[in-house]
Amino acid sequence: MSTSTHAKPIRVGIVGATGYTGVELLRLLAQHPQAQVVAVTSRQESGMPVADMFPSLRGHVDAVFQTPDEAQLDQCDVVFFATPHGVAMNEAQALLDKGVKVIDLAADFRLQDTKVFEKWYKMPHACPDILAQSVYGLVEINREKIAKAQVVGNPGCYPVTVLLGTAPLWGHSTPLVEARVVADCKSGVSGAGRKAAVGSLFSEASDNFKAYGVGGHRHHPEISAQLKLLNQGQDIDLTFVPHLVPMIRGMFSTLYVRITPEGMDTDFQALYEQFYANEYFVDVLPAGVIPETRSVRASNKIRIAIQRHGDQLIIMAAQDNLVKGASGQAVQNMNLMFGLPEQTGLEHVAILP
Amino acid sequence: MSTSTHAKPIRVGIVGATGYTGVELLRLLAQHPQAQVVAVTSRQESGMPVADMFPSLRGHVDAVFQTPDEAQLDQCDVVFFATPHGVAMNEAQALLDKGVKVIDLAADFRLQDTKVFEKWYKMPHACPDILAQSVYGLVEINREKIAKAQVVGNPGCYPVTVLLGTAPLWGHSTPLVEARVVADCKSGVSGAGRKAAVGSLFSEASDNFKAYGVGGHRHHPEISAQLKLLNQGQDIDLTFVPHLVPMIRGMFSTLYVRITPEGMDTDFQALYEQFYANEYFVDVLPAGVIPETRSVRASNKIRIAIQRHGDQLIIMAAQDNLVKGASGQAVQNMNLMFGLPEQTGLEHVAILP
Amino acid sequence: MSTSTHAKPIRVGIVGATGYTGVELLRLLAQHPQAQVVAVTSRQESGMPVADMFPSLRGHVDAVFQTPDEAQLDQCDVVFFATPHGVAMNEAQALLDKGVKVIDLAADFRLQDTKVFEKWYKMPHACPDILAQSVYGLVEINREKIAKAQVVGNPGCYPVTVLLGTAPLWGHSTPLVEARVVADCKSGVSGAGRKAAVGSLFSEASDNFKAYGVGGHRHHPEISAQLKLLNQGQDIDLTFVPHLVPMIRGMFSTLYVRITPEGMDTDFQALYEQFYANEYFVDVLPAGVIPETRSVRASNKIRIAIQRHGDQLIIMAAQDNLVKGASGQAVQNMNLMFGLPEQTGLEHVAILP
Amino acid sequence: MSTSTHAKPIRVGIVGATGYTGVELLRLLAQHPQAQVVAVTSRQESGMPVADMFPSLRGHVDAVFQTPDEAQLDQCDVVFFATPHGVAMNEAQALLDKGVKVIDLAADFRLQDTKVFEKWYKMPHACPDILAQSVYGLVEINREKIAKAQVVGNPGCYPVTVLLGTAPLWGHSTPLVEARVVADCKSGVSGAGRKAAVGSLFSEASDNFKAYGVGGHRHHPEISAQLKLLNQGQDIDLTFVPHLVPMIRGMFSTLYVRITPEGMDTDFQALYEQFYANEYFVDVLPAGVIPETRSVRASNKIRIAIQRHGDQLIIMAAQDNLVKGASGQAVQNMNLMFGLPEQTGLEHVAILP
Repeated sequence: MSTSTHAKPIRVGIVGATGYTGVELLRLLAQHPQAQVVAVTSRQESGMPVADMFPSLRGHVDAVFQTPDEAQLDQCDVVFFATPHGVAMNEAQALLDKGVKVIDLAADFRLQDTKVFEKWYKMPHACPDILAQSVYGLVEINREKIAKAQVVGNPGCYPVTVLLGTAPLWGHSTPLVEARVVADCKSGVSGAGRKAAVGSLFSEASDNFKAYGVGGHRHHPEISAQLKLLNQGQDIDLTFVPHLVPMIRGMFSTLYVRITPEGMDTDFQALYEQFYANEYFVDVLPAGVIPETRSVRASNKIRIAIQRHGDQLIIMAAQDNLVKGASGQAVQNMNLMFGLPEQTGLEHVAILP
Repeated sequence: MSTSTHAKPIRVGIVGATGYTGVELLRLLAQHPQAQVVAVTSRQESGMPVADMFPSLRGHVDAVFQTPDEAQLDQCDVVFFATPHGVAMNEAQALLDKGVKVIDLAADFRLQDTKVFEKWYKMPHACPDILAQSVYGLVEINREKIAKAQVVGNPGCYPVTVLLGTAPLWGHSTPLVEARVVADCKSGVSGAGRKAAVGSLFSEASDNFKAYGVGGHRHHPEISAQLKLLNQGQDIDLTFVPHLVPMIRGMFSTLYVRITPEGMDTDFQALYEQFYANEYFVDVLPAGVIPETRSVRASNKIRIAIQRHGDQLIIMAAQDNLVKGASGQAVQNMNLMFGLPEQTGLEHVAILP
Repeated sequence: MSTSTHAKPIRVGIVGATGYTGVELLRLLAQHPQAQVVAVTSRQESGMPVADMFPSLRGHVDAVFQTPDEAQLDQCDVVFFATPHGVAMNEAQALLDKGVKVIDLAADFRLQDTKVFEKWYKMPHACPDILAQSVYGLVEINREKIAKAQVVGNPGCYPVTVLLGTAPLWGHSTPLVEARVVADCKSGVSGAGRKAAVGSLFSEASDNFKAYGVGGHRHHPEISAQLKLLNQGQDIDLTFVPHLVPMIRGMFSTLYVRITPEGMDTDFQALYEQFYANEYFVDVLPAGVIPETRSVRASNKIRIAIQRHGDQLIIMAAQDNLVKGASGQAVQNMNLMFGLPEQTGLEHVAILP
Repeated sequence: MSTSTHAKPIRVGIVGATGYTGVELLRLLAQHPQAQVVAVTSRQESGMPVADMFPSLRGHVDAVFQTPDEAQLDQCDVVFFATPHGVAMNEAQALLDKGVKVIDLAADFRLQDTKVFEKWYKMPHACPDILAQSVYGLVEINREKIAKAQVVGNPGCYPVTVLLGTAPLWGHSTPLVEARVVADCKSGVSGAGRKAAVGSLFSEASDNFKAYGVGGHRHHPEISAQLKLLNQGQDIDLTFVPHLVPMIRGMFSTLYVRITPEGMDTDFQALYEQFYANEYFVDVLPAGVIPETRSVRASNKIRIAIQRHGDQLIIMAAQDNLVKGASGQAVQNMNLMFGLPEQTGLEHVAILP
């Protein structure tokens, strides 16, 4: 599976691969026919074989964590940042100067408005110029721009579901639905990352269900900004309530929108099917079928269903938060940026049961 | 804990105690200071000690499953039906004739409209006359009627959360909110009962999240009918989407309501706190605190929080579906029907972690 | 349930109640008819209501975390230490001087040999004199000594299962089994406590099974020392392999012992039943019945089964690690130390499902 | 990934693909570069698209369940039986007559002794002649025979761990260990299959741990027979205790063996490393590293560690019960039977977290 049919595989560097998006990138890239991971960095773990930290990679990944200096990232074709927010924006310029493309899995290049960024991420933005050239890396929406981008801000996990879940509704000459979305979103615990925190302990999160983010969630402004773009510059009011599900992977968003009087005759099932007819990774389910997260576990697909109750439209979207919601999306961006077929290395069948 | 301070404990019979509401009733009643379980029936398991089926009861419950004939249910003071829908309505009359009170944990006495019952439960109602005298057993709403009732229809688990979660909003001279509720509800798997079904298998339901009931859920008409009563006879439009959470017990409902222009000045936090000020089992959380299901695991409490986003009101309610959502509610009804303090035998602290 | 029928309830202090054994103590004591928690300490959380940290206690526990100074622990009748290893041994003397009894849930008073303690816990023992007077708090083995003790070292969770699981086998004039035990033990994740650690994260521990403690586990010397006492001073060789199970509570130990030629005619089922005939909390299951951890979830019982395969004896023991394996055991010790019936406040039925 | 580089892919039929080994076969074969699934049968579900039952396969598997008659299995190159015990032995002859190879994932060809088969599976063996020519399909032990076999009996999941976990120990001129194994084995719930059974319900199996198979487990005679072969015809006494773990996939066996006086000088770590030096799917971990099931989740690897405590040898083996313990093993057999490199289509990296 890792045999390349091209003369020159893409040389990949990963910064900060000690978290879940990091190990997921490594899993996907180890099986990618056109990519070769040549550097994996971690200041704290430098010198440790990556497979010692992630035993699933034993026999597949020989890389050793290096310090950024050792890693010679500037000799890569592309560098993924699987780091905390605020790292990529400080290191991107040096890489771009050497012609290395950058894909950031954190939030540094998700929000074009630096004031909004500063408000939600509590730090000034380090490179507004690069930000202005960066592209929001949701392929199904920004495909052409991504193909030409040097810097991509990989979307947050929740935004992927809300944006793909409602994209067919916006931009019609006569609005089909009110410009108002209630997004009741549910995420597996891996979304909280691999850092030691009491709230993510098994004994806290297992056999439990709760909402969180009462004071506002950082994905709220990201979703709002992208919805506005989809809606031709008109604001869409967003109510966003994230919840925590006792499962490792998986994200399920239930989206509520009210149909306008003008939209009442619309065949929304047909609308969605046509909108996504050519999208390999977006699966609009037949009417009456409901998605479930295990149907996309460890796969890059997102499965969407729509239901209607009078003038209430209910959209359900299920993805693996670590794949389509993070690392798979990032590889999809990479494929596009290097002229490969989008699904290269991303065709894995979901794991069920 | 099981010592009675009264001369005559309530003599209790349980019909069909081989499911989860049955074993939960047995757990609660074994520790109830004023109740004595004198008969437990199951046609299929007659002759088997109850504790052989439910090893948690070893040392606490000596009862043996009996056939209905052996059980002499007509000598009980009260009989709980923890049976499938359709059983209680056929056996209630004979018990009532002997002065035995009846509490049905199934749906036979939840819907006053027999046509609605027949539509959703696919069977004609066997005793419309008894139904007309029966009381919907949600104590916080129907306390006075329940105290005098001979027959109580214990509410469905979802309805408890939606009704208690929105009760303070209705019946105001000027409507505070639109007559329209979106109920995004999440339940643990025990809500599906103890019957062998592929969809409830560990390997299907674990590490997974999904919506279900796409064609409509039986609790929909029950909630709608009760909401209408709360709203002084005015219909409330209900969008109800149940979801399945990979946990055994617990139910969490996120309820979305739009505030009317007239309601915009309302202090909803204060409204809820006042409405439930004297309710032992309803805990309105302080502003900014979000409920979680484990905070009520194995307890009869329901914890409610409210949040506001502009004109959008978000109410969150968490309960244990088998306790406040079923068997604890039933015991609370029994206490009331026999003149005991409501919390008798129901003061258990939730199990956390 | 918390009403006392005695004039003077036991005044209880809890040091360090921010962990799982702490909240479990609070749960049990809040429902104990003869105990009153008068002080709960935590240096870090002083000033915070206990129920803010543990929402399950809302409405049941009004206490506020205090600093040790504020708490006036010396006015208690008994103080539980639910602290890390090494705390109780430094604070016990001051309490004992005031006539306050001490029950330590950590390891400070579990190992009589201070050299062994220092080797495994990496600290010198601070009070060898008190240690010499302390009693190992496993009631079924040390009942009489505990009743008179001023200081009790509450046993580790694994030791309870191995010691009660094999106690009937030792001390016979002719050995019934070889002096050698293989203990294959499995614990729920709450055994690792409430401290933030990557290995205890939901995303690490869920949907996974592993052994741990390859370099030796601290319960090994504790079990060995107690086995030797049970075996009249003769060493018993112990192989102890702990494993981590993706569940919150529960411990299951499978113990393998070889029967001696002299023991081959023994009726081990009868031996166990007789040995534990009068023990309320030890349930020897009928032949052919296998225990499961959920049958004791949140209860103070331990259920034991024995099986035989030729000369191989297999003993299985299931307990809740936080109850019989920790806080319930501690309350059982308290009851005994204050002349109460052992099961006072500990008769809760297990939570199933 | 499913593009074949050979002119003629292997034509595969699957009988009874409605269970977990069936869907796992479909997952693996859909991504296998040299295989093409041409027929999938199920009498009950005939006419239903396979991906309607298993939504993970949407977009990957177009097959529709057929009746055995429709399916024309005799035109396949190989047929897998993912059926209950007793099916393959009745249908194998007709296929063999047409030159179709057979791999049975049930027990029909696992036990050479028909009396033993009849005792444990409660049915007479339908084709003793075919049985005599069949090969036990554990590649690492029977590689050469499998390569030439027409009929392969795929091993049970537990036997794989016990046999590979102890294989290096047997057959030495001087016995290194006693001919006696204690196998304390733990399995995820998917091992019980996809049939509706109360004991496999989420609400029964979650947050719980238990042993099972008290009256003996069918894998016992299978392991014993193979151990005897490995031990040059000498019996090995086996104590086998299976346990159920609340996880979907994964199997972990802890094996206890006593070292003989002659074996005390053996370097068992080196012995294992050498024995498995050339095995792609058997990963002997470095000394001090302990396996965990998630490190092989959805992968065909088995990871083995050994530890020593005096004369007690402790071997730990972790596999995915549905892959190396079932369907992956079956594909590995297929590869061998058709002259392909063993790891073809089986190189997937494990899913972690």
